[in-house]
Amino acid sequence: MGHGGGGALSSELVQHIFAPAFGGDLLAGLADSAALTLGGTRLAFSTDSFVVRPLFFPGGSIGDLAVNGTVNDLAMSGARAAYLSCGFILEEGVEVPLVSRVAEALGAAARAAGVEVATGDTKVVEAGRGDGIYLNTAGIGLIPEGVDIRPQRAVPGDVVIVSGAIGVHGVAVMSVRDGLEFGVEVESDCAALGGLVEAMLAVTPDLHVLRDPTRGGLAAALNEIAVAATVGVVLREKAVPVPPPVANACAVLGLDPMYVANEGKLVAFVPRAHADAVLAAMREHPLGAEAAIIGECVETHPGMVVARTGLGGTRVVDLPVGEQLPRIC
Amino acid sequence: MGHGGGGALSSELVQHIFAPAFGGDLLAGLADSAALTLGGTRLAFSTDSFVVRPLFFPGGSIGDLAVNGTVNDLAMSGARAAYLSCGFILEEGVEVPLVSRVAEALGAAARAAGVEVATGDTKVVEAGRGDGIYLNTAGIGLIPEGVDIRPQRAVPGDVVIVSGAIGVHGVAVMSVRDGLEFGVEVESDCAALGGLVEAMLAVTPDLHVLRDPTRGGLAAALNEIAVAATVGVVLREKAVPVPPPVANACAVLGLDPMYVANEGKLVAFVPRAHADAVLAAMREHPLGAEAAIIGECVETHPGMVVARTGLGGTRVVDLPVGEQLPRIC
Repeated sequence: MGHGGGGALSSELVQHIFAPAFGGDLLAGLADSAALTLGGTRLAFSTDSFVVRPLFFPGGSIGDLAVNGTVNDLAMSGARAAYLSCGFILEEGVEVPLVSRVAEALGAAARAAGVEVATGDTKVVEAGRGDGIYLNTAGIGLIPEGVDIRPQRAVPGDVVIVSGAIGVHGVAVMSVRDGLEFGVEVESDCAALGGLVEAMLAVTPDLHVLRDPTRGGLAAALNEIAVAATVGVVLREKAVPVPPPVANACAVLGLDPMYVANEGKLVAFVPRAHADAVLAAMREHPLGAEAAIIGECVETHPGMVVARTGLGGTRVVDLPVGEQLPRIC
Repeated sequence: MGHGGGGALSSELVQHIFAPAFGGDLLAGLADSAALTLGGTRLAFSTDSFVVRPLFFPGGSIGDLAVNGTVNDLAMSGARAAYLSCGFILEEGVEVPLVSRVAEALGAAARAAGVEVATGDTKVVEAGRGDGIYLNTAGIGLIPEGVDIRPQRAVPGDVVIVSGAIGVHGVAVMSVRDGLEFGVEVESDCAALGGLVEAMLAVTPDLHVLRDPTRGGLAAALNEIAVAATVGVVLREKAVPVPPPVANACAVLGLDPMYVANEGKLVAFVPRAHADAVLAAMREHPLGAEAAIIGECVETHPGMVVARTGLGGTRVVDLPVGEQLPRIC
């Protein structure tokens, strides 16, 4: 299960199996989406499969995730998603009304995000060879002129901003997981971030890095950026917004909110000169109202993320190895 | 299982559930790929999931299918595939060397087709919730100027050409299916059709319809075109190339080769004035060496496909309802 967790094992699969097998430079870029040029047009292109369990959870469903996950990957290149593909893998015996509910959730999420589902496919596998519904979406969007956002562009001095409270999606899904139900007043933060990114780009096209901290959470996202750009990251742990219900649920489950998935948050590396203005623009957007500066990019300890704890100490925030919360998206 | 078979049940899912839920006009176009405009560039965009069993079969693997299936869907718009996305859903416990072999097959097929794998994703599900490896690919490619190929463009008088022998992929996969193994000297025709389509477009950009007859076979492809364009199709049954081993295997299994999947064939609706030249160009291409004129498009019986049998009679070639051969791609 760990190879799907977004941590070190996932990264090994990509680096040691997929990248060598497929060749090419784009996969090696380690970004949430590939930036490419076709017919003179600069496009972002990305894909995600979705195997979340259960299919509906507080605040969303696999249909919402399938839209917002891919829309957000495109947004992390600065692109506004234009078109989505959608592939269903249905398990024999899944109820048609359930398929219909998921399709309707997906369609509603697409309309909310301003993206059109342009093409699709359906396959059916035998009962016991699937789990109700698996989804895949791929998306394409235009990258605006002058925008070059990718993990490699982080530089010492950049200010690290998170768009809001972390850990909410993972805790919301776990709260309704079979065998694990617990009462917690948390709804998934699942949302499309294209509009928030546009508001940030309106301040300056010179955002260095954007990342949506999904599987592996904020810790995985920051580690990947630190490695890709060969920079260090220093966090002020107290500045990272963690809602009390998330902190409590994590304490009970033995989880660290830094490693819990988010589906409607982003982390940005912004040149210091623009940081205050970008933060102000984020806070004016509904999806960035709780945006906060949580740290900075440094020259020391390249490839490593360090948190300054409330007690004045420091701790290393590792890339997770495997999967804390399987099938969270 | 029938809802994934490419026949009438699949079509119902799209028309009654997915198209209304997703909205938009592109899905309703019923083409193998969507033709869209982004930043002034005309693109084809398509997706397919792959659940073939077994993962390796005579003449190919799920990795070959995942590339060629999507490359061919793009080619059916006249587009040369440029970039692919690739999503793996792995079942817990699948051997890493098997994943590696599939990835290598996929990479080799991509290089052969001249397409780059630009972005990917991996998810892992518990043992018993998948079947080794499921794949999804989506692809984008440029549609050349002046090319407008889609099912709706079929008109009475068009000549119907098939690029070679039918039924080969389905029979090859079935010959190694658990519990059904039979000795047959047939390898899958799995191949990328972009080059063949380019050779045809070099004769004339005015090809009306292209379709790769995968699930549901030639019968499903022709029925979909007849319905989309409100035209009739008349086939000369004897002219449809069916290799003897395929005919024999189908006789034993109780299948009609017209309904068996192909993965390296296309059917074209070509204006009569260009038909001989297009056929000649196809025959000069390795993937079209056995191309044949198999019928024509007529005004009578719109929405219906009729075969003239060898005995001088006629029979209706229906859209298949469900699935003759589950999990063939």
